[in-house]
Amino acid sequence: MPRRRVIIVGGVAAGPAAAAEARRTDPEAEIILIEKGSDISYSACEMPLFIAGHIGTDERLVRFDAASFSKRFSVEVRLHSEAIRIDPASRHIDVSHQQSSGTETLWYDALVLATGVRAHVPVALQAASHHVMTLRRLEDARLLRGRIEKDPTGHVVVVGAGYVGLDGVEAFSRAGWRVTLLAPRGRVLPSGLDAGMSDYLYRWLENQGIVIRSERATGLDVSPDGRIRAVRTDVGERIGCDLVLVATGTVPNDELARRAGIACHEAGGISVSDSMQTSVPAVFACGDVVAHTELISGAMHHIPLALNAFRSGRVAGRNAARGGKGRALRMGPVVHAAAVSVGGMEVAHTGWTLEAASAAGMDAVAADVRHRSASSNAPNSLLYVRLVATRKDRRIVGGQLIGQEGAAQRINVLTALIRSGATVEDVYAMDYVYTPRLAPAHDALFVASRQLQKALDVG
Amino acid sequence: MPRRRVIIVGGVAAGPAAAAEARRTDPEAEIILIEKGSDISYSACEMPLFIAGHIGTDERLVRFDAASFSKRFSVEVRLHSEAIRIDPASRHIDVSHQQSSGTETLWYDALVLATGVRAHVPVALQAASHHVMTLRRLEDARLLRGRIEKDPTGHVVVVGAGYVGLDGVEAFSRAGWRVTLLAPRGRVLPSGLDAGMSDYLYRWLENQGIVIRSERATGLDVSPDGRIRAVRTDVGERIGCDLVLVATGTVPNDELARRAGIACHEAGGISVSDSMQTSVPAVFACGDVVAHTELISGAMHHIPLALNAFRSGRVAGRNAARGGKGRALRMGPVVHAAAVSVGGMEVAHTGWTLEAASAAGMDAVAADVRHRSASSNAPNSLLYVRLVATRKDRRIVGGQLIGQEGAAQRINVLTALIRSGATVEDVYAMDYVYTPRLAPAHDALFVASRQLQKALDVG
Repeated sequence: MPRRRVIIVGGVAAGPAAAAEARRTDPEAEIILIEKGSDISYSACEMPLFIAGHIGTDERLVRFDAASFSKRFSVEVRLHSEAIRIDPASRHIDVSHQQSSGTETLWYDALVLATGVRAHVPVALQAASHHVMTLRRLEDARLLRGRIEKDPTGHVVVVGAGYVGLDGVEAFSRAGWRVTLLAPRGRVLPSGLDAGMSDYLYRWLENQGIVIRSERATGLDVSPDGRIRAVRTDVGERIGCDLVLVATGTVPNDELARRAGIACHEAGGISVSDSMQTSVPAVFACGDVVAHTELISGAMHHIPLALNAFRSGRVAGRNAARGGKGRALRMGPVVHAAAVSVGGMEVAHTGWTLEAASAAGMDAVAADVRHRSASSNAPNSLLYVRLVATRKDRRIVGGQLIGQEGAAQRINVLTALIRSGATVEDVYAMDYVYTPRLAPAHDALFVASRQLQKALDVG
Repeated sequence: MPRRRVIIVGGVAAGPAAAAEARRTDPEAEIILIEKGSDISYSACEMPLFIAGHIGTDERLVRFDAASFSKRFSVEVRLHSEAIRIDPASRHIDVSHQQSSGTETLWYDALVLATGVRAHVPVALQAASHHVMTLRRLEDARLLRGRIEKDPTGHVVVVGAGYVGLDGVEAFSRAGWRVTLLAPRGRVLPSGLDAGMSDYLYRWLENQGIVIRSERATGLDVSPDGRIRAVRTDVGERIGCDLVLVATGTVPNDELARRAGIACHEAGGISVSDSMQTSVPAVFACGDVVAHTELISGAMHHIPLALNAFRSGRVAGRNAARGGKGRALRMGPVVHAAAVSVGGMEVAHTGWTLEAASAAGMDAVAADVRHRSASSNAPNSLLYVRLVATRKDRRIVGGQLIGQEGAAQRINVLTALIRSGATVEDVYAMDYVYTPRLAPAHDALFVASRQLQKALDVG
């Protein structure tokens, strides 16, 4: 029997997971991993620490270099190689080699697309200046770190207050740079925090010396030699600076799939089943480029998170390699839960904000408490909590936590409860541990559940 | 209509919760709280910090003193008063007053028993010496702190390595005393940790300078003037010391109920329904003196924890005060989850150990991993995890975590999963957040779930 050939496009997170699982599934298969950049298998989330110099070398971010990954999993790794065309009918793929400028056509039995997302830069902020940057790939992080090492002090304008923007704030402020954050409408992490919680974080960051402005960037002043002079804003301001980090969102790299006639979502991203099968036979997709079923709504959502990339990569790799034999893997619904550490504050959220839930037509109610992450006798333990539930069936649909400690792990408790379809009564009934300095007699989630019970009983 | 009279016996944790809820339920009722000691409403779990001097005064442990509690909830608080007899037929209770040596008979409409537990001291370790102590009540903590303040250095032998024993180790080692811990069969926290996990903690504590001996205390050498000379052990050793802390378990204070013909469990503790109703009309019980339905087994277990005391107190207070009107409260099944901080280590467990599960006839399987509580680049983040599941339906029935950080909060995640009836696949599918320094790319529970899947697939 001839060896199956599995080709995987994309080497950051989902791709290597797919390749490793494909190898475990079929010890005989020929597995080829194609990556257009120079790195595979790295921790994008650790980049802020590297940029700020808190992680010595970028090797600490890389789980496997190409050679060791190749050896460990018997996978052929091709760097600086870009998949440019898929012919699903004949099961071939064209790959262009950056270094030789040549193009090669490869046949496959199964193809896995793990092409990820890229930074989306509005036209007004596109500039041919190496002082206007994005932060998405390890190459970006290396450039930003190089810049900080060259100029130990400087002024960066971070455009956008989502996760990547806050990562930029963290990296540059830790490195000692002056930071101005442009947060339109004054909202920090607007996809994860309702207005009130956003306000706590806004004020905290201001107290840490971050300048936050509620303006939108509308353009850049770049000198003829390519140096950035200023960011222009929608109130006519010009903010002088030495560097601009554009963090205005990402878009899925789904063009390769679209050109091949593979079904994609209108909002972007490749459509897949729960076995990571695309609309085209023998083509699978995984990682940030696909959408997942969101657990609470049952709808497809684009939730690009590292763990989803890893798990969907395993599913795609297994199902691509098994060729109809053995046990299929499937990816279940996901909850959107994420955390970030910025300015000494832990910020975490799960599920739906009240704003998003209301906009989606849920009749939802929120309760807020200000409590402690540890016993009353512990320092720095202030914790802000918001719980969101549906009014009718009292089901928890979201939560937000901000505090100097205890937010990130506690959001996992709430996610576990949400996954189980918990009502506010289940949050009250939970067996939270209590031990001084680590966990208060009445956990913040417990206290919030009582507050939410009252809000629901009144309403 | 005459005012209802609700009498509550016991003022540490469940009693005040019952009194406060009774007041919320019936603004008109006469509510009397009877406490034989001199304090009510204090945090017993914070006592180690107070003993070691890390909490300045015992006022920081007391949530309400008698006067402020009385004022806030319009409750008559009687200190130094002991309930000595109940006549359920005529609904009267006899109360003896320690200070006047008098006895008084009070009628009630509803009675709530929150008499708690007391330290159980084996006969061989009972001694008329103020150098042989237990740690259960605030009075005990005051005496221990006084002793440490008098003798800044000394040698304490802690008899028993359960929660109270480890609290004693923590308090005395923080205060600078030499500590010898007697842990029979070398097992530390045997009710919560399987042998392998106990071994990690044993070695860690030894490295922190705690002497641990696998012997059982068989007697005490006390000098004629009441000073302790030594603890004798079952291998014929005599361990010279300045103080002995006996932490060999607790027994429920159920004698008052038994004498009144109220049904109790054979193993001790008052039998109650999920509305905290005893076998006798108009008599309720709550807190450490009652047993609860354990969620996994469905059997009654004695799980004396602060949060169960609070919640069962609310249930008893509501149902005692409502007199058949309004909405009843009920107490649902509980999971046994607890945590302790000792020697700079967080130790936490939930549900059943493999040993206990096997002894109870469950066909269970465990998996162990050594992972990290935060990203690989964070210091002190080593975390030992054990997951326990049933072989047949792959349901998670327990977990154990030991690490310098991240154990206590993470056990809550596992408890939430256990409460929902999660299988090992649900632990794998959880949406754990990932953020450097706070949570690793692959959470320790996620990694443990993969290990357990393998163990179950093999078995």
